[in-house]
This record gives sequence, structure tokens and C-alpha cells, in this order.
Amino acid sequence: MQCPFPKKFPSQLQKDDDFFMSMAYNEAIQAYEADEIPVGAVIVYQQQIIASAHNRVKTLNDPTAHAEMLAITQAAQFIGDWRLNETTLYVTKEPCPMCSGATIMARVGTVIYGFSDPKMGGLGGAFSLQDLPQTNHRPVIKQDVLKEPCYELVRHFFDTRRQRIEEINDL
Amino acid sequence: MQCPFPKKFPSQLQKDDDFFMSMAYNEAIQAYEADEIPVGAVIVYQQQIIASAHNRVKTLNDPTAHAEMLAITQAAQFIGDWRLNETTLYVTKEPCPMCSGATIMARVGTVIYGFSDPKMGGLGGAFSLQDLPQTNHRPVIKQDVLKEPCYELVRHFFDTRRQRIEEINDL
Repeated sequence: MQCPFPKKFPSQLQKDDDFFMSMAYNEAIQAYEADEIPVGAVIVYQQQIIASAHNRVKTLNDPTAHAEMLAITQAAQFIGDWRLNETTLYVTKEPCPMCSGATIMARVGTVIYGFSDPKMGGLGGAFSLQDLPQTNHRPVIKQDVLKEPCYELVRHFFDTRRQRIEEINDL
Repeated sequence: MQCPFPKKFPSQLQKDDDFFMSMAYNEAIQAYEADEIPVGAVIVYQQQIIASAHNRVKTLNDPTAHAEMLAITQAAQFIGDWRLNETTLYVTKEPCPMCSGATIMARVGTVIYGFSDPKMGGLGGAFSLQDLPQTNHRPVIKQDVLKEPCYELVRHFFDTRRQRIEEINDL
């Protein structure tokens, strides 16, 4: 499925949150093109991207294949340790309960997301897993980085899909 | 590392919760022998085991490689759908936040666990993800099946590890 939004190519000279979130956004566009809910993620370590993935639930027929999960697995392989304390996860949408849990189990240092999910977001949107009193790891959380484009991508995806379903029902 | 507890071989004639949890328990013993926190899981569909796994975080160097996650991925491959509504997950320990979230994302019909985890259990022990008002899936939860042996395995693993650490510190 063609994605009507272009990828972003920001300057590499300033590797800030917008830069890294743009790379996650580009992953989300690849998800859109594969007819997957368009969410993308990258993981950064010492200012370098060490993991990059998009949602592949349908493609892999695997309910655990969210962008964040795939990126966390990649990052642990790169670092050679399952503890990711020194890393930052950028993800276009607030992580779901599974992925929020994974950021805690993997001890991801910082989680930065594009837009909040008041329905199922586990890091502030619907509930706050990082505030669980017994947890032995609390990621630093930051939100609303490239919020609008990250959200528009998902909104457009669902609007188009709804329209397609209506077209099919009209046949 | 040798596990001091033997595997269980219950009769196949009565495939009840104790039977299936025994199979999860045997997976947990395999985790113990691989020096992994001894948690095991199986997934059952139409009275048959379609997935079977144990914790492999250290072996695979992957913080997402909990028994439940690996079993869910296997089950989706077997069924050919990422939605696992007709399945029952048996796991020796109450799922952590990540795995609790995964049971909801994968729409696992029923989750049966051995012993509760009041520190980090996400299906009743520390918090109850299935009670999140916005969720569109709520697994049926049952607990305390083969509770004692499932718990003893983990307790013994940590006691032994603590002792080994003390021995190393004494050198």
C-alpha cells in the first residue's frame, strides 16, 4: 500500500531528538507500505542508531512483533547484554502494555515517544507502568516529539482502511 | 547447572490443568538446567499442546525472550493467526508486565499460572492489566495450579545462586 507521506531526511549535523524520531518515523512509513499499523522505533546508544524496526505483526504473523520489541532484541544483540540502561528508545507512538513492560524488563534508560495513547499507552497515557512502586527500573520518559506527523500517519492509515472496508461492504 | 527437582510425568489419560501445568513445569526445569530463572510455559489449543518454551533471556541475550513470549510466537505460527482467542496459556509464574501485556495484545483466551508475583505480576499480583477499562480483550485468569512446586523451583534457584555468590565472595 502506497504511503502518501514522504520520508524525512533531516541534516545529520544535529543529531537531536527530532533527528532520531525522524528515523523512527521513516520506519513507520515502511510499516504503512507493508499494510501494517504504522509505528516505527529506533534505539540510540552513544549517539548512534543501533536498532531500527517497524511493526510487523501481520507480516510475521506474530502478535509480539511490535516495533519496540524487535528493536529491543536488536539492541541487546548489538550491545551484547540484555540490560539496555545506556540506551534511548525513540518510538512514534506511546508503547502498548507489552512494549511498556519490555522497556522496563530490558532496563531501557530513556523512552521518547511521538504521541500518547490514552486508550492503551503504558507509559503515561492510559496508565504508568514506570510508577509501579516495586519496579527496580524506571525509564526516563519524554513525549510529544514530532507528535503531529507521527499521529497523522496512524490516523490516515485507519481512515483509509475504514474507507476500504466501506467500499468492500458496498460491493 | 543440575536441577535437584525431577520432571513430572503425569498420565496422558486425564489432560486437565495439572497435566498441562506439569508440562510447563518441565520446561521450567530445562530453564533451571540452562542457568536461567526457571519459568516455563505451554499453550494449549483443542486439548493439544501447540507451543512449549522456557525462559531464555541469558541464552539468547534477549530481554524479550521470556517463556510466555516465545510460546505466544510459536502458537501464532501454529494457528496461522496472531489472534489466540481459542488458546490457554499455562505458565509456572504469574506473567511480568511485558508478558501480561502480550497475553492481551495476542488475545489469549485463558491464562493459568502457578504462583502469583506480588512484586511484578501483571495479572492480579502487583496490578491487573486485564481490568484496564479501555482494553478490548480480557483473558480469563486462573491461578495456584501446581503452585508449590512451581514456586519451589524459583526459590531454590535464587537461594542456590545467592549461596554461589557468597562462595565466590569468600575466595
